[in-house]
Amino acid sequence: MNKFVLIMAGGVGSRFWPASRRERPKQFMDFLGTGKSLLQLTYERFSKEFEDAHIYIVTNSNYKKLVQEQLPNLPQGNILGEPVGKNTSAAIAFGCFKIHELHGKSNVIVSPSDHLILDGDVFMKTIKTTLEFVNENKALVTIGIKPTRPDTGYGYIQYVDMPVTDDICQVKTFVEKPNKEMAEELLKSGDFVWNAGIFAWNTESIIQEFKKYLPEISSLFGKLKGKWGTDKEENIIAEIYPQCKSISIDYGILEHSKMVYLSPGSFQWSDLGTWLSLFENAEKQENNNAIIGSNIKAYNTEGSLLYNDDEKPLVTNGIKDLIVVKSDGIVLVCHNSKEQDVKQIVNDLKSKYKEKFT
Amino acid sequence: MNKFVLIMAGGVGSRFWPASRRERPKQFMDFLGTGKSLLQLTYERFSKEFEDAHIYIVTNSNYKKLVQEQLPNLPQGNILGEPVGKNTSAAIAFGCFKIHELHGKSNVIVSPSDHLILDGDVFMKTIKTTLEFVNENKALVTIGIKPTRPDTGYGYIQYVDMPVTDDICQVKTFVEKPNKEMAEELLKSGDFVWNAGIFAWNTESIIQEFKKYLPEISSLFGKLKGKWGTDKEENIIAEIYPQCKSISIDYGILEHSKMVYLSPGSFQWSDLGTWLSLFENAEKQENNNAIIGSNIKAYNTEGSLLYNDDEKPLVTNGIKDLIVVKSDGIVLVCHNSKEQDVKQIVNDLKSKYKEKFT
Repeated sequence: MNKFVLIMAGGVGSRFWPASRRERPKQFMDFLGTGKSLLQLTYERFSKEFEDAHIYIVTNSNYKKLVQEQLPNLPQGNILGEPVGKNTSAAIAFGCFKIHELHGKSNVIVSPSDHLILDGDVFMKTIKTTLEFVNENKALVTIGIKPTRPDTGYGYIQYVDMPVTDDICQVKTFVEKPNKEMAEELLKSGDFVWNAGIFAWNTESIIQEFKKYLPEISSLFGKLKGKWGTDKEENIIAEIYPQCKSISIDYGILEHSKMVYLSPGSFQWSDLGTWLSLFENAEKQENNNAIIGSNIKAYNTEGSLLYNDDEKPLVTNGIKDLIVVKSDGIVLVCHNSKEQDVKQIVNDLKSKYKEKFT
Repeated sequence: MNKFVLIMAGGVGSRFWPASRRERPKQFMDFLGTGKSLLQLTYERFSKEFEDAHIYIVTNSNYKKLVQEQLPNLPQGNILGEPVGKNTSAAIAFGCFKIHELHGKSNVIVSPSDHLILDGDVFMKTIKTTLEFVNENKALVTIGIKPTRPDTGYGYIQYVDMPVTDDICQVKTFVEKPNKEMAEELLKSGDFVWNAGIFAWNTESIIQEFKKYLPEISSLFGKLKGKWGTDKEENIIAEIYPQCKSISIDYGILEHSKMVYLSPGSFQWSDLGTWLSLFENAEKQENNNAIIGSNIKAYNTEGSLLYNDDEKPLVTNGIKDLIVVKSDGIVLVCHNSKEQDVKQIVNDLKSKYKEKFT
C-alpha cells in the first residue's frame, strides 16, 4: 500500500507564550523535557512505519530551516514551506496535491505536529486499520478519541453506532467547542468523541472533495499541475497562497462531505493546547508539581507548573496552583484559572512592543 | 566644626536575592525606581551639608570601582577598600583612625548606605544637633527611631526619659531583634526606639573606646600610624584585616561603653532589610501593587511586589501577595509570608552552584 504522512507544523502556539514564540513555536520545543521537540516525537512515532521519503512536513517558510535542523534525515523536498499561514485547508491541499502528482493515488495520514500521544503502539494500530479503510474506500476519515472529561477546549464528533467495518463508523455531526453544560451532556450521551485533528484519506478522495467544496483552492493548486517538484513550484506557491481562502479543513470540507467516517482511537491523547493541558498531562513530582526544564527549585510549592528553559535559576516559595514560565528571559506568572488569558496577553504585548517579545 | 561622614557600603544584601548579588549588592542598585542607587541617594542626602573631601566610603575592595562609577566626584582616597568583610567594628576603625590621623580630631557621622530615609530635612536637622553634641562631649551617640509597629526585624534601644540636652538622652539598654510578643511589649512601654545603625562621635572618643573594649582591633590599626594616605596603607590594611575580630560595633563597643547616648530621630526611616520592607515602603499602584522596573504588566494582580531589571517582559495574572523578582534572568516567585526564607535559599543555591547565581 502506498502510504504517506503529512505533518502540519505551521502553527505559532501563542497560548504557550512566552515559551512558544514566533521565532520558535511550540512544535519545535522540548516541551515534555524528553530532550526531543514535539515535532521530533511526532516524526519518530511515524517513522517506525513510514519511510523518510514518505513523510512530508508542511510549515511556514520561516520554519523550514528549523525543520531541517530537527529532522535532518528528511529529504529537503519533503519540507513544504507556506509563504503565509492559511489554515488547514490550504496546507492539506499543498501536501495532498503534491503527493498525488509525484506518487500517484496515495493514502495519506494528516497529523498535527504538536500533540501528545502516549501509547504509540495503540496509535499505530489505529493508523494502520484507518489506512486500510481509505485504501479501499472513497472516504475521509477523522480519528476520534473517547472523551474522559467534559473538556470545553475540544471539538466533538457524534458518530452512528453502526460500524461500517470493525473499526470504522459513520459520522452524524460535528460540534464546535462546547460550553461546560453542553460538554457534560455530550460526555453523558456516550456517542460523541473528541475531534483529534488527525485525518486519513486517499489523494483521489480529498482532491475530489476540494473540487466540490473548496473549488477556489482546488483551481489555485490546479495551476501547479506538471510543475510540482520543479523549480517553478516555489514561485507558483508564492503567487497562489495569498489568494487561498483561510479556512479549516473541518469547516471547509469535513462538515459538508458525504464520505466522512470516524475511526475511534483508544490511545492516550492530548492536543497540548494550553499550559493547563500541559500541566495535566505532565509527569508530576512532589506536591503535584510539574517541573519542566533545569535549575528549578521549588520550596513550599503545590500544584504548579514550573518551566525554565535556560540555566539561570527559577526559584519559587509558598505558591500554589500557578503556572510559572521563564523562557529566554521573559517571565509569565499566571494562576491556573487564568491560563485562557494567555492569548489576550500576547495580543496586548504585540500592540505595545510589535513582535519583539512574542 | 570639623565634620565627616563615613558611609558603610560593604554588605552583600543576600536577603534581596536575586536582585542583590555578590557582584552588585543592594546598595548599588536603583531599588526605588528613582534612577539612583541607594548609595547615591545616601551620598546626595549628605552632600548638601558635607563637602566631597569629607565624605568617606568603606566598602569591599571588589566594589571600589562600582563606588567610583556611582560617585565620580568623590576623591579616590576617600574610598576605603576592605580586603575581607569583618563586620562594622573593623570598618568603623578603618574610617575613624584614618580620618583622625589625616584631619585631626573630627566629628564623624557613621551611616549605612542602603537605608531609606524619606524626609531628608528632618534627618539633616537631627544630624546637625547630634554633631554639635559630640563636638562638645565625650560621647558615642546612636540615632533611634520612634517605632510605629512591633517590628521583629530591628534591634531596640531603651532610653532614659531625662534628656541630657533638648535633643539627646541617655541610653539604658540595647535589645536584640525581639520576638513578636516582646516587640509588642517594647512598643507599648513607650521608652524603646529602633536602632537605626546611624552613629555619631568625635574620633578621639571612638578611638579611646576601641582601645578600651576592642584592644586587638585598636592595636592592629595602630600599625598604620604615620602610614595613612601613603603607599604603605594598602599593604598594611591587607595584612591586618584578616586578623581583625569580626564583630559589630553594637556588640563590640556600644553595649559596654559608659558614654553612649541616644539622639531620637523623627524622620521616616526603613532599613529596607527585606523584600517585604521594600514592598511596605514602596509607592503603591493600582490594587496595592509595588511595581519597580520596566516592562512589567500586571493583570488581576493584588498586593504584590513586581521587580524587573531588564527589558524582557514580566507578566503576571491572577496572583496575590507575591514577591516576583526577575533580575539578570534569574527569577524568584515568593509568597509575602515566606520572604524570610530568601537568605536560606541563597545558601542552598551557593551549595549547589558555588557563587554562580548569588
